[in-house]
Amino acid sequence: MRGTGGFSKRGDHGLKREVAIVAVGATRFGEHWSKGLKDLAWEAGVQAVEEAGISGKDIQYIVFGNMSGGMFEGQEHVGALVADFLGLNPVPATRVEAACASGGVAFFQGYLAVASGMYDLVAVGGVEKMTDVEPGQATEILSAAMDYEWEAYFGATFPGVYALMATRYMHDYGLKPETLAKVAVKNHYHGSMNPLAHFRNRMTVEDVLSSPIVAHPLRRNDCCPVSDGAACVLLAPLDEAHKYTDTPIIVKGVAQASDTLSLLERRDICTLNATVQAAEKAFAMAKLARRDVDLVEVHDCFTIAEILALEDLGFCAKGEAFKLYEEGETYVGGRLPVNTDGGLKAGGHAVGATGVKQLVEIVKQLRGEAEGGRQVDEAEIGLAHNVGGSGATAVVTILSRR
Amino acid sequence: MRGTGGFSKRGDHGLKREVAIVAVGATRFGEHWSKGLKDLAWEAGVQAVEEAGISGKDIQYIVFGNMSGGMFEGQEHVGALVADFLGLNPVPATRVEAACASGGVAFFQGYLAVASGMYDLVAVGGVEKMTDVEPGQATEILSAAMDYEWEAYFGATFPGVYALMATRYMHDYGLKPETLAKVAVKNHYHGSMNPLAHFRNRMTVEDVLSSPIVAHPLRRNDCCPVSDGAACVLLAPLDEAHKYTDTPIIVKGVAQASDTLSLLERRDICTLNATVQAAEKAFAMAKLARRDVDLVEVHDCFTIAEILALEDLGFCAKGEAFKLYEEGETYVGGRLPVNTDGGLKAGGHAVGATGVKQLVEIVKQLRGEAEGGRQVDEAEIGLAHNVGGSGATAVVTILSRR
Repeated sequence: MRGTGGFSKRGDHGLKREVAIVAVGATRFGEHWSKGLKDLAWEAGVQAVEEAGISGKDIQYIVFGNMSGGMFEGQEHVGALVADFLGLNPVPATRVEAACASGGVAFFQGYLAVASGMYDLVAVGGVEKMTDVEPGQATEILSAAMDYEWEAYFGATFPGVYALMATRYMHDYGLKPETLAKVAVKNHYHGSMNPLAHFRNRMTVEDVLSSPIVAHPLRRNDCCPVSDGAACVLLAPLDEAHKYTDTPIIVKGVAQASDTLSLLERRDICTLNATVQAAEKAFAMAKLARRDVDLVEVHDCFTIAEILALEDLGFCAKGEAFKLYEEGETYVGGRLPVNTDGGLKAGGHAVGATGVKQLVEIVKQLRGEAEGGRQVDEAEIGLAHNVGGSGATAVVTILSRR
Repeated sequence: MRGTGGFSKRGDHGLKREVAIVAVGATRFGEHWSKGLKDLAWEAGVQAVEEAGISGKDIQYIVFGNMSGGMFEGQEHVGALVADFLGLNPVPATRVEAACASGGVAFFQGYLAVASGMYDLVAVGGVEKMTDVEPGQATEILSAAMDYEWEAYFGATFPGVYALMATRYMHDYGLKPETLAKVAVKNHYHGSMNPLAHFRNRMTVEDVLSSPIVAHPLRRNDCCPVSDGAACVLLAPLDEAHKYTDTPIIVKGVAQASDTLSLLERRDICTLNATVQAAEKAFAMAKLARRDVDLVEVHDCFTIAEILALEDLGFCAKGEAFKLYEEGETYVGGRLPVNTDGGLKAGGHAVGATGVKQLVEIVKQLRGEAEGGRQVDEAEIGLAHNVGGSGATAVVTILSRR
């Protein structure tokens, strides 16, 4: 039944109104040597504005995810910067940050701004410009998403932290490097069909297994790249969505949850409890079951993260998700297509923008507009899963075309 | 008429419900050599939780303002960090950033989260730990709140930018350094009565005028200090506020606006248009007039900023506000008490926390709990004004005790 998810039975705790995504825009993720933070945000924003057939002045509120403009570019205050550079002053503009979940968290805030009745047209975006620093420095900056005092200070990096998870998972459940490699192979296959992907080359299991070790057992081709990029979605009340589009995509559920920043405080380092909690809430809000979902975008900053995500989201029991990869079920055409745009691994990871870019892909799929042969047949419901750090923040969003 | 501000006549665009501040907490602002980011956030948060007589687990959502944990401390992802250190996982926790307006912007987001019907108890906080870097480095980090490409890259600092405004204002309106100094003198007088103030010493006009020049015409005693500190307020729907307090403070109006980051793009550098826009909206939402306001907290990062604020907020015509200082009307007991806690100048400026600390002071005043002789008689309505950078973001909040 259209329009009831999360609204009809919640009494005083229900939201005022339903929300739809009415337009999207995204830059290619990659190394944009000739584009800065502002240019990338502008490019994604203008695409969305043009798609909606509006003027920028129609936008009433802006929420932008950005992880670390300060450390990457010497530029904080990115919300106002975006409003300024897009010529949208005095529209209120806020930057939110939750490490690599900044985009997802921005979406949640923008959702509330429309669901509350405060605003009728809200731009949610994400942007990150990561390639103006030395490669090693990017890894150091990203470490600010960990618990500085208990992890980063002692030299931990994210490849190292996810390597701990992978090692434990392999020990507990019998995952082999050959299967882990298939996550990257699948994502590069999907990325090869996506004109906005950072990497469009296909690769084999052997290509992954012969790439250099970064942090055992993770090799270079188990790791997502450092990307520049931006993405944007426009949100409106569902009952006004027809003003902007014939194919509004409805936000059925969205939830955010937190966990410890440091791995050492968790009972089980193979479970991202923030993902578990956010997924439970998002599915409850959407009144949907896992089997209703036609495709997912999950946060594969490392190959192991994609496997953990499918389990923590409830699509598989713990220790079972990697078997989907042995059977090829996560390709377009499979039982559960995962990361049809190439994910973070091949699609790229412009950290503050990733959570929004995932939504752009889901929207394109639900509209039937995914080009290059990666369209999922009759996709009606899609889920996006965005993680900050090693799982201290997770956001799960469920979108539907009807 | 209670409970109608911004709600009764707005039809589909109105918010779902009214919101009240039901508890507050704040650390002293100052140099906290033995306390880190987490400790400060904990101290303010626990105060608020204890005041409300709740358990931390009752909190459903956390929004924390923080300008630059990354550059000050190597620590981004501050929202989840606060949830983690306060033992509140898996409660969703978001960091928002708008430079020195981060606290005000966090409050606006938290307000939406309650007004929307999504959450019934939300913690809004702000925290900044600024003294772990060298003093000169703090000024450099703060410059990230400017337009990096057009200002900071060329060596501009905030004292320099505000000095430009002061110079122009003096030229246009005849403000004398002796009058500008009275802003600092008044704020130190108020700060001397506030146990949470960074500076509690009183000073004379001569003390200000004999302090070293930082950026002509601004002297050291025209500039606020670099502080560590945190503040927190708890928000609930007004109709549930009695569960937590006998003296809920009602959010009558709150608005945020943006302007250019760089001064060079503005028509008049003596006007912060974001303040003008946010004030217009906040007063319209509150259905109140300037004359209804009993006290204000304004963003006096430099003495000149306090004068500009009173004009841009609409309490005086442009070029007139400094005359209030010649007449002593901004002291407690005067016509319009300004910065009764010492403001940023004496109260301190822990940048991400300041916008929330201002609200804590207003709440104490409206409850009649301001200690040390700084209580404003029969204060019913107070306004807080929080600015990011040189005015690219402004947030105006109007609170009422009935």
